[in-house]
Amino acid sequence: MTTSVQPIPQFYAVIPAGGIGSRLWPLSRAEAPKFLHDLTGSGRSLLRDTWDRLVPLTGPDRIMVVTGRAHRAAVEEQLPDLSDMNIVLESEPRDSSAAIGLAAAILEKREPGVVIGSFAADHVIRGARFFNMAVTEAVAAAQAGYIATIGIRPDEPATGFGYIHAHKELPVNGAPSALEVDSFVEKPDFATAEKYIASGDYLWNAGMFIMKASVMLEELGRTKPALLAGILELAEVWDDKEKRGPVVDRVWPKLEKIAIDYSIAEPAADAGRLVTIPAEFDWDDVGDFASIAKLHSTGHKNDLAILGEGARVLSDASSGIVVTETGRTIALIGVRDIVVVDTGDALLVTTTANAQKVKAVVDALRIAGRDDVL
Amino acid sequence: MTTSVQPIPQFYAVIPAGGIGSRLWPLSRAEAPKFLHDLTGSGRSLLRDTWDRLVPLTGPDRIMVVTGRAHRAAVEEQLPDLSDMNIVLESEPRDSSAAIGLAAAILEKREPGVVIGSFAADHVIRGARFFNMAVTEAVAAAQAGYIATIGIRPDEPATGFGYIHAHKELPVNGAPSALEVDSFVEKPDFATAEKYIASGDYLWNAGMFIMKASVMLEELGRTKPALLAGILELAEVWDDKEKRGPVVDRVWPKLEKIAIDYSIAEPAADAGRLVTIPAEFDWDDVGDFASIAKLHSTGHKNDLAILGEGARVLSDASSGIVVTETGRTIALIGVRDIVVVDTGDALLVTTTANAQKVKAVVDALRIAGRDDVL
Repeated sequence: MTTSVQPIPQFYAVIPAGGIGSRLWPLSRAEAPKFLHDLTGSGRSLLRDTWDRLVPLTGPDRIMVVTGRAHRAAVEEQLPDLSDMNIVLESEPRDSSAAIGLAAAILEKREPGVVIGSFAADHVIRGARFFNMAVTEAVAAAQAGYIATIGIRPDEPATGFGYIHAHKELPVNGAPSALEVDSFVEKPDFATAEKYIASGDYLWNAGMFIMKASVMLEELGRTKPALLAGILELAEVWDDKEKRGPVVDRVWPKLEKIAIDYSIAEPAADAGRLVTIPAEFDWDDVGDFASIAKLHSTGHKNDLAILGEGARVLSDASSGIVVTETGRTIALIGVRDIVVVDTGDALLVTTTANAQKVKAVVDALRIAGRDDVL
Repeated sequence: MTTSVQPIPQFYAVIPAGGIGSRLWPLSRAEAPKFLHDLTGSGRSLLRDTWDRLVPLTGPDRIMVVTGRAHRAAVEEQLPDLSDMNIVLESEPRDSSAAIGLAAAILEKREPGVVIGSFAADHVIRGARFFNMAVTEAVAAAQAGYIATIGIRPDEPATGFGYIHAHKELPVNGAPSALEVDSFVEKPDFATAEKYIASGDYLWNAGMFIMKASVMLEELGRTKPALLAGILELAEVWDDKEKRGPVVDRVWPKLEKIAIDYSIAEPAADAGRLVTIPAEFDWDDVGDFASIAKLHSTGHKNDLAILGEGARVLSDASSGIVVTETGRTIALIGVRDIVVVDTGDALLVTTTANAQKVKAVVDALRIAGRDDVL
């Protein structure tokens, strides 16, 4: 096994940059989805962090971004090295199978035999060396015909993530850590999560899939033939700008909306074609403000995370997280585990324990026709 | 005893409109002090409510407002019927003895024998009939040579107010409720407050003083002769606009800063010249956001008071108070007894239990030189 900081041959990264991140309202919006925000305090958006993490493994010319038309300008601003060839614009969101499948079909047409790896645009990862090691092994497993996923070794019984059940070692050339995946399991309750941790046979599902593009298409043909047919029709004309438009208009609205977990990962696991590479890096999908607060925690009792350029926060005996986009003076007195998210037209005040309920507010605003703040 | 809705003869009301109301930051500011805000949801400022309460007792030509030069325009906008003669502008704040003393001296010069009553510009009173009855009795006591204060019958052991100890009935013509004041006592702790309530001999000190202007000046001459000398010098030239300026410039900065409680009320109580009229109306000095929340409480468990024109608040299992000046969408999830005060350049998040600590934030901001938000 070698840890390469040279680009991995025949490897192409795909970044689906789609989800809004409703649980991060009012920070995340239709116009400013989660992946465009800096949630780590790095000064860079999550999308840019994702790009920077992948470039050493691919080079700047081998990362494809699939995103909505509305986000084109923002994505290009974040990723100045992204070429026109490598941005796939969705006329409307059709979930991850369509997004990643179309990327696979386009890339397979351009470069038969290519291995693709899909990586969410809005996760946080720390530990580049371990990430690189895991991706390198996963690509080797993909070269051997497997669909590979990277499983994160859990360090606590998290109930907010899905898990991968895997314990049987599988001899794959270049992927000494590979385990055969028994099954994927949905977000568990706390007691179940504790059992998972104790058993040592469960990993967090970080939603990273690495496989030959041809293998993905083959699998999709088996589980979702109509979706595959649409994708192939799009890919056939994608690089011909004159022909592309009418085909997109006709085919796109009919693409089935389904997550890659259900069209590819679970069926492949059942068929014994799915392996996982257990990995040691820190990973979080930063799905709500509680997890952002945790990300910024230093372990002190009165930890108050503060995110936002030019934030001016005064805190007296308060903990939790403040996210501000306004530069206003914010004073907190005696509020524990608080979540304050301060934007120009909307303000959220809740607690880390209620962070998952933010989505309900978004739903209520949608029902009330308040698209102006969504 | 008669309850007059006719103006009371020889009576003049004085409204010192000075204090900022630091515990109501960031709503109250140097530029927009508490008395200019609508804290009751009436649609009118506390100052305007005070004026409207007094006009039936005095007529519109017999209310004098003492305020800072910076607030002239705002006060005149609030009180269009206030005549030029009746606005006394302080070049800088010198506390209540100077403010009310100067008003007394000006009015005594204009109209010897006048009775003045001073009423804070930023308190909330409900129950006009009882207020009118109490003021009418207090004026009668003042005519008899006493300094009269209106004492509010407490309905709970409040620790945020000072108390008046008074139990001995005093025969005063036209003031059948009058009691001789034994002493003023500072804000008590809860156990002491409970004893006060149980005894029945204690009233809340609402800071209302009614007396002949000449009696006030005489008392001030006894306790603070230098302050009286300055005040008389100012009053001598006050109504001569040519002469006033230089005297103000010379005398004003030297006026001693002292509350009327210490220069007049306590010494008068010790000298047996102070009577109190117990009154039954609802009174609150709305000193902090907890008291505003209480003012708006309907007694329900999940009471959330919302103050602010065009407020757009979504609440899920939350209670407390939201004050907003911005029209932003505000979502609260699972926060109990919360205080959220949302202004253009500053945001406060605390709890009703911590409402008194807001002043410490203001102090911290002052020390930090953040006059922009004070």
